[in-house]
Amino acid sequence: MKYAVIGTGAVGGFYGGKLANAGKDVHFLMHSDYEYVKQNGLQVDSCDGSFHIDNPNVYNNTSDMPKADVVIVALKTTRNHLLNELLPPLLHKETLVLLIQNGIGPEPELQKLFPGLYLAAGLAFICSAKTEPGRVNHQCYGSINIGNYSCKNEAVFKTLMADFEEAGVKAAEVEYNEARWKKAVWNMPFNGMTVVMNAQTNQLLANPATMQLIHRQMLEVIGAAQALGVKNIDSSFADRMIKMTLEMTPYSPSMKLDYDFHRPMEIEYLYSNAIAEAHRAGYAMPCLEMLEAQLNFLSERQRVAGK
Amino acid sequence: MKYAVIGTGAVGGFYGGKLANAGKDVHFLMHSDYEYVKQNGLQVDSCDGSFHIDNPNVYNNTSDMPKADVVIVALKTTRNHLLNELLPPLLHKETLVLLIQNGIGPEPELQKLFPGLYLAAGLAFICSAKTEPGRVNHQCYGSINIGNYSCKNEAVFKTLMADFEEAGVKAAEVEYNEARWKKAVWNMPFNGMTVVMNAQTNQLLANPATMQLIHRQMLEVIGAAQALGVKNIDSSFADRMIKMTLEMTPYSPSMKLDYDFHRPMEIEYLYSNAIAEAHRAGYAMPCLEMLEAQLNFLSERQRVAGK
Repeated sequence: MKYAVIGTGAVGGFYGGKLANAGKDVHFLMHSDYEYVKQNGLQVDSCDGSFHIDNPNVYNNTSDMPKADVVIVALKTTRNHLLNELLPPLLHKETLVLLIQNGIGPEPELQKLFPGLYLAAGLAFICSAKTEPGRVNHQCYGSINIGNYSCKNEAVFKTLMADFEEAGVKAAEVEYNEARWKKAVWNMPFNGMTVVMNAQTNQLLANPATMQLIHRQMLEVIGAAQALGVKNIDSSFADRMIKMTLEMTPYSPSMKLDYDFHRPMEIEYLYSNAIAEAHRAGYAMPCLEMLEAQLNFLSERQRVAGK
Repeated sequence: MKYAVIGTGAVGGFYGGKLANAGKDVHFLMHSDYEYVKQNGLQVDSCDGSFHIDNPNVYNNTSDMPKADVVIVALKTTRNHLLNELLPPLLHKETLVLLIQNGIGPEPELQKLFPGLYLAAGLAFICSAKTEPGRVNHQCYGSINIGNYSCKNEAVFKTLMADFEEAGVKAAEVEYNEARWKKAVWNMPFNGMTVVMNAQTNQLLANPATMQLIHRQMLEVIGAAQALGVKNIDSSFADRMIKMTLEMTPYSPSMKLDYDFHRPMEIEYLYSNAIAEAHRAGYAMPCLEMLEAQLNFLSERQRVAGK
């Protein structure tokens, strides 16, 4: 099975790297790191054992790449407008596109542009960062929940799952909406709150006021998911997420890094889409709506200051 | 009628100064500014006409002060624990204590310590700041709503109102709870949000996201007030407060100045007491409860950093 990876950063570099390291046929689209990785290969420093891909298949243009059976998209959602041009050269009739992205709604949006495309959601539970060109630092975790959105080829879906397992990545199939909303339970409180409070996860949980607030925000996401008919999610999931985060190394989620490095934040997919979905089911998330407003304020201030 | 002023800052200096400037018998308790004002008098730079009190009656100890008919308390609520010692030397049997303070609940708390004391609430609609020793900068507004909490001497209450008017201060009698909660409609959103977002009032209102959030927070306060049986308050009051703020000079509310100058913030009276009152009436203010948590986080971080 042939893999293409679009967005070879902290997430795409890790999962694509794991597959390549297991001998799978992986083709990486690179942007700023293209020349470096072509010369030096791809390094993954990992808590589960570091490794180096000596001569990865790297490209700086999808039109030079072979058609793939699975395209892993690990771009930030803020760059999803690029997919309209990036994807077509990679697609054959039954290509499965796996969106390893945060937030709610990237599949239905992409499906509008590519009506017949096979799509799946990948929700990565991973702490990793791209620390320098061609180098991914994988701190902890790394499992992935995969939800089938519109893939009608069961064989390719099953092979993808098997390939991940073979590459040492714990992959679980989870119902699509359950996968996306469960990830949102962690993402929505922590991404925004670390930005607005300028704090890491551990600092937010060490203070009783923000610990309680994070928990309340998690319950808002769980309430929205339940209103939308998502199964297998109740308030005990919030407790599990808090417990897991307490056990984690102090962590800056991706939105915090984006803000600190003056990159656009994924407010639309992480907040606006989720809030709009919940409203459609008649459910409000007041604390997360407030967080969205605070983030929009900070985003606009940073945008104007950067001009 | 003899006046004592405890807390001769941006607010106490203005109202006490106006009364003294109108020839009333006013006695000021001073702390850090005592020596300076004793030597140089009290300067009020005011949009309504500046003035100077040449030889004000200043003291650095209430035990040196004469008993007063009206004690104006314009301390921050974070220093209300001092009143237990400061007040007794100033009180005769029918002294009226006017608390010109922000938030919900200072009168019932003080009443517990002084069960027979005559108390009233003063809600100042004023933009002013103490810019240097013995100098108050009054930027705009200046009216005061006064709510009778427990004053049984109607004569002293009426004389106080008349004295304010004579001194050029627009004073209106408003039902006690209405007075406190109406002020909270402005105070609760703007004090906390300017701190958490590190922004002035105009910046928050220039951004559609935070403008809408401020409006929503105002509606939470109005909803709480209505749940508590406060009369003469509905959603149109939020519109009026927004309109008024849009017309104001860019402003940093007192809590923003407190935070910027590393002084304790009035979270307890402005947020915690209001939230607890609302909960007693079965009403939740989720966005303001979130703001309280964010402020408690920032307050604790600043406290630890200052050690």
